[in-house]
Amino acid sequence: MSNKKPIRIGLIGTGLMGRIHTNAYKRIPDFFSEFEYMPVLQAACARREDKVKAFAEQWGYASYETDWKELIAREDIDAVDICTPNDTHAEIAIAAAKAGKMILCEKPLSRTLEEGEAMVKAVEEAGVKNTVWYNYRRVPAVTLAKQLVDSGKLGKIFHYRANFLQDWTINPELPQGGDALWRLDVDAAGSGVTGDLLAHCIDTAMWLNGGIKDVSAMTETFIKERVHQGSGMVQKVGIDDACVFHCHFDNGSLGLFEATRYARGHKALYTFEINGEHASIRWDLHDMNWLEIFDHKDESQVRGWRRVHITEGEQPYMNRWWIPGTSIGYEHSFIHQAADFFLSLQTGEPCAPTFQDAFETQKVCQAVLDSAASKSWKDTGVKWEG
Amino acid sequence: MSNKKPIRIGLIGTGLMGRIHTNAYKRIPDFFSEFEYMPVLQAACARREDKVKAFAEQWGYASYETDWKELIAREDIDAVDICTPNDTHAEIAIAAAKAGKMILCEKPLSRTLEEGEAMVKAVEEAGVKNTVWYNYRRVPAVTLAKQLVDSGKLGKIFHYRANFLQDWTINPELPQGGDALWRLDVDAAGSGVTGDLLAHCIDTAMWLNGGIKDVSAMTETFIKERVHQGSGMVQKVGIDDACVFHCHFDNGSLGLFEATRYARGHKALYTFEINGEHASIRWDLHDMNWLEIFDHKDESQVRGWRRVHITEGEQPYMNRWWIPGTSIGYEHSFIHQAADFFLSLQTGEPCAPTFQDAFETQKVCQAVLDSAASKSWKDTGVKWEG
Amino acid sequence: MSNKKPIRIGLIGTGLMGRIHTNAYKRIPDFFSEFEYMPVLQAACARREDKVKAFAEQWGYASYETDWKELIAREDIDAVDICTPNDTHAEIAIAAAKAGKMILCEKPLSRTLEEGEAMVKAVEEAGVKNTVWYNYRRVPAVTLAKQLVDSGKLGKIFHYRANFLQDWTINPELPQGGDALWRLDVDAAGSGVTGDLLAHCIDTAMWLNGGIKDVSAMTETFIKERVHQGSGMVQKVGIDDACVFHCHFDNGSLGLFEATRYARGHKALYTFEINGEHASIRWDLHDMNWLEIFDHKDESQVRGWRRVHITEGEQPYMNRWWIPGTSIGYEHSFIHQAADFFLSLQTGEPCAPTFQDAFETQKVCQAVLDSAASKSWKDTGVKWEG
Amino acid sequence: MSNKKPIRIGLIGTGLMGRIHTNAYKRIPDFFSEFEYMPVLQAACARREDKVKAFAEQWGYASYETDWKELIAREDIDAVDICTPNDTHAEIAIAAAKAGKMILCEKPLSRTLEEGEAMVKAVEEAGVKNTVWYNYRRVPAVTLAKQLVDSGKLGKIFHYRANFLQDWTINPELPQGGDALWRLDVDAAGSGVTGDLLAHCIDTAMWLNGGIKDVSAMTETFIKERVHQGSGMVQKVGIDDACVFHCHFDNGSLGLFEATRYARGHKALYTFEINGEHASIRWDLHDMNWLEIFDHKDESQVRGWRRVHITEGEQPYMNRWWIPGTSIGYEHSFIHQAADFFLSLQTGEPCAPTFQDAFETQKVCQAVLDSAASKSWKDTGVKWEG
Repeated sequence: MSNKKPIRIGLIGTGLMGRIHTNAYKRIPDFFSEFEYMPVLQAACARREDKVKAFAEQWGYASYETDWKELIAREDIDAVDICTPNDTHAEIAIAAAKAGKMILCEKPLSRTLEEGEAMVKAVEEAGVKNTVWYNYRRVPAVTLAKQLVDSGKLGKIFHYRANFLQDWTINPELPQGGDALWRLDVDAAGSGVTGDLLAHCIDTAMWLNGGIKDVSAMTETFIKERVHQGSGMVQKVGIDDACVFHCHFDNGSLGLFEATRYARGHKALYTFEINGEHASIRWDLHDMNWLEIFDHKDESQVRGWRRVHITEGEQPYMNRWWIPGTSIGYEHSFIHQAADFFLSLQTGEPCAPTFQDAFETQKVCQAVLDSAASKSWKDTGVKWEG
Repeated sequence: MSNKKPIRIGLIGTGLMGRIHTNAYKRIPDFFSEFEYMPVLQAACARREDKVKAFAEQWGYASYETDWKELIAREDIDAVDICTPNDTHAEIAIAAAKAGKMILCEKPLSRTLEEGEAMVKAVEEAGVKNTVWYNYRRVPAVTLAKQLVDSGKLGKIFHYRANFLQDWTINPELPQGGDALWRLDVDAAGSGVTGDLLAHCIDTAMWLNGGIKDVSAMTETFIKERVHQGSGMVQKVGIDDACVFHCHFDNGSLGLFEATRYARGHKALYTFEINGEHASIRWDLHDMNWLEIFDHKDESQVRGWRRVHITEGEQPYMNRWWIPGTSIGYEHSFIHQAADFFLSLQTGEPCAPTFQDAFETQKVCQAVLDSAASKSWKDTGVKWEG
Repeated sequence: MSNKKPIRIGLIGTGLMGRIHTNAYKRIPDFFSEFEYMPVLQAACARREDKVKAFAEQWGYASYETDWKELIAREDIDAVDICTPNDTHAEIAIAAAKAGKMILCEKPLSRTLEEGEAMVKAVEEAGVKNTVWYNYRRVPAVTLAKQLVDSGKLGKIFHYRANFLQDWTINPELPQGGDALWRLDVDAAGSGVTGDLLAHCIDTAMWLNGGIKDVSAMTETFIKERVHQGSGMVQKVGIDDACVFHCHFDNGSLGLFEATRYARGHKALYTFEINGEHASIRWDLHDMNWLEIFDHKDESQVRGWRRVHITEGEQPYMNRWWIPGTSIGYEHSFIHQAADFFLSLQTGEPCAPTFQDAFETQKVCQAVLDSAASKSWKDTGVKWEG
Repeated sequence: MSNKKPIRIGLIGTGLMGRIHTNAYKRIPDFFSEFEYMPVLQAACARREDKVKAFAEQWGYASYETDWKELIAREDIDAVDICTPNDTHAEIAIAAAKAGKMILCEKPLSRTLEEGEAMVKAVEEAGVKNTVWYNYRRVPAVTLAKQLVDSGKLGKIFHYRANFLQDWTINPELPQGGDALWRLDVDAAGSGVTGDLLAHCIDTAMWLNGGIKDVSAMTETFIKERVHQGSGMVQKVGIDDACVFHCHFDNGSLGLFEATRYARGHKALYTFEINGEHASIRWDLHDMNWLEIFDHKDESQVRGWRRVHITEGEQPYMNRWWIPGTSIGYEHSFIHQAADFFLSLQTGEPCAPTFQDAFETQKVCQAVLDSAASKSWKDTGVKWEG
């Protein structure tokens, strides 16, 4: 690595995303060794010193901080990776931009449009590299779907449908808030499944199928009250447990989206399907190495859905890994995103989705929540160029 | 059959449904031989004499008519089976009721609520037996789903989702109207996929999960103009090519429905899934002999979706057929419905879905179309007792 | 049916096969109405008068017999359908041939090669039409497989594998012998899974892939003793509970076959797969309306196994049935075989598999049993021209 | 890592297995951070200096060697990892044992029984830690299968079947021998699919189901001659392209195994299924995060094969990784095996499969090849205690 240009990472937040981003950085030298830029694990940051010290030691960070402002102030940090709960994204990102740092921010971009707008403005004014970890774009099967859509293989698109189904909050005894369960606390999370799960579906959808114009949504909170881990009191639950919406895309196709944490039997069933004039495509996170394709141009007697195993060197990213027939896992989507970020430093191109791209997704999320609250259709105001 | 009570059938309409209902009647003596009442193929009716004569001869009807009014007037007809396009259901059914005939009517009940209301009134005033051919209730896997829901195995229901996807009208050269394609002509059909496909989904859904309270819908007509087979002219297409809606059920669960004829790769993909507190169920017409079940009470290490092959004698209807592991087909759902109709003559119970039940489904369809037209939520007014 | 030529059927044996063959005959006029020859249910035959009388009445046979010799002696019988246990096939068939009757015999042809040879000789000397009910050839997906193989789409064949897995005899309390369980009695059945299940696999295999040259087999009887329903005594079990063999086909490909009644979780899992130079095919009775195809000539990025739903009018037999996307069942394979038999009367062609074809299958079964007994390879002596 | 005990690895062979073993070592500190022993990448070894130097630099080895004897002679190497072609395993392993090094050897152990026996003797005499990389045991779904079998959930076992199907050598233009294709050269590989693919199936099978007693096998070489990359001449192909065998296990169950590189449509389809008295299990490498289970003790109406997603913390190894519903990949089976090796240093237990265990697998491979050559059954001589 002697002749490589180091990018010194300061990671804020050492939970699941902190771990998986770190793992991604550590694989770059091994699997993308020809890259010009390379990550260096410079500092990890979290509030509790014992935890962050152990984390830094375990994962090989050169140092640690307990105050993110200290981290951002350090001159030996080139890029800040934000893995903290949603309510901290805006403040940290804006400060990091002002300090001239590159920013890799966990999704969703923000809790509100106001926060998001300020974040976009901050990175643009500072002219700093920025990206948001919508990792599913970098699952090879999903990337291949993008290539197929762009190639025109599907023709005119009629339908896009996606859902993200989980079942982990059915138990009413589960508290809200705190380190582990901040996603159930509306103040920390901003929203429930809309920002957590639908945001993923919307990012992928607009990437594959263009802007979402207007939406009609319904949300539900099945468990109305839960103990709050902070206060110890039973409090009203402010998040959406489930959300469904339909919409029009700019290209005239119809969209249908659903997310819930009350679908017994599904852990993380993120699926999408696109129906075009000539061909259709579907994908399912539970079987993430497969892409299903129906091509109407196949000979009619033997036409059917093909289940394509995305493990060949000629398929996106797979030349980096093992041999045909052998699969990769969830973490590889993050590795690919990290790799694309480092590649973008070399090419000078933006690393999509940028803050601006993620802000467009945020607009759809907000329109969805507004539509559900007002029981009416809402325009999103999205301007998609992705 | 000497000591059996014959029910003399007059069948009106000799297309696909005429064929499949006739096939159903003919299997009753063989497979439900202990029944007290038995069908007799008394007369078939269609406008073109050459066709109806050939049909009657092929299928073994004792006679034929070319005017349905003549058929209804005949004293040797006990039950009228209506297999004609939707625009004729009301007139025929009302006349048949007045003539004191039992009525088996193809779905959907009617084109409009006005028609449907008059039909319900007619059969109730006449006190005649009536049923509507929502055949999917009698697919053994679907009937088993009903038993599981009613047993409480699923617990409180959170989500119900269904779709019915086809791809047969993508070709813009396809004309509308005429014998084969009346489903594309709004005057004959009343609506597009809403009455044709969603009506099935709604009937099953309310049977399994209770009444639908309110809906928010979106429809689309992708191909705006088609040649009309009657006039030979290019005319505006009045039907909905695709329709999606979300809704609340009376029991507080959320519903999500979609139907389209523009989903490349799907011939007749009718699927539904129910997510309950303790268990979930899903079914797919393309694999109609299977029911998938997830039971959270299974031991956690080996918990998963079970794919249950519905071919055992102890499962609904299957003791009538062959041996475990061997499947039945689409036509058997109609045979079972016919059998249940003949059984209901014996028990004196109504044969669900009755005209009244089907009218409730009609209310949802109408609310869906109104919601889509007005871009607003609509109450359905459904009173479900099913 | 006035101008049709009637073929008066005499059916011997009124168990499962008696029912399903009868059902097949009854569908011919409805679904193959243009045929010149038509079945007439002339007489059913079984030993117990109360049972055969009820059977004849239920299914619409014009008369009944309790002695098969009487049946064969009747001049008003044109064709004899043998649905009795295997130990009676030879005697009945030879007598029927001598009486100049057409013969439709359940599989397997016979218990032994000696019996089979005599049966072939009898029908050839008598010059009577003959066929054996290897029904799986007439599952549309399997027929399509044959067309694909014959078209050269697969290229040179390397591998053929098939299995037939059941689980219904795991319970050691199950008796052997008697009406219901004669398949467990070696005297009645001739063998266990070899004649019952592997015979099906072998018939399909040689039809699709040509003659089997030599075999190496292993059999096992897991439950060594069972009560015999005839004697009431515990007796040694003489059948094979499981049998596996590998073999060479005449075309140089390798074969692998397995059948068992001890595979927990499988009711009637008959599957086969063929691997060719250019393409592969697989099929599964539990999903009988699907054929899976892998075509190496597909574009490499999107190459995968296609799941083809065999429900289109252009696919074998399916123009007789309903609409695309709707499935048929187990019984339809018998209806198709009956239809092909009646068609063959018109064309004058043999109706495969003939007794001679089935005798070749018998040779493989015998070689398999001999190989297992002697723990050595055996030549089959098959001369396949199918 | 200050208080950890370092194990200095010397890796010989820098191909696919060299890469994936190295990757495994590098994950131990991150994901198994509490372990007492930790790997240190001390030296990589390969014949070509430019290649090994680049490899060492890319992956972070502290040094490199071009002669494996030099590597073994180094005092700063604690463990030797053998990733070279099969023809070098014995010589290297025996030398390493004599030098007192721990040995981690790629599978298969050896080309011949003679080699294998000498290797076992060498490690036992030297008393050095040893293990063979039969990685599939450490796929979490497979490890769970082992736990289920051992728990008695399946009851008495009747059947074990496995296959390993590939399609990468169908092209006759593919040469044999050389760096990339040594697996096609019998001198380097010892055998074809038997040692390469069946060895995996046999290791898993005996681990799950006990010793294999005797075998009857058939092999085939479809492409008889190929250009040799060494000589540049067309030479006879000495390996088996395909191999199938059936066998008896010590526990009385029947085994059926198949491997080929001529199964069009399969990249690395390693599947196994076990049928027991009470339950059955199956697994498929192409969907490696799933285990399918049929439990006869489930309520009969809703009994079916369960598809269990092995991504929960309570399932083997999965508490090391991400969140429920998210999958891991092929490489993780190696990471788990490496982890188990380091754990075994701590516990003092052997790290199965040891050389002795792998030698038992070798006996089955040899018996299979001998059986195929002699067309007769062969006893394996296996003494399985695993």
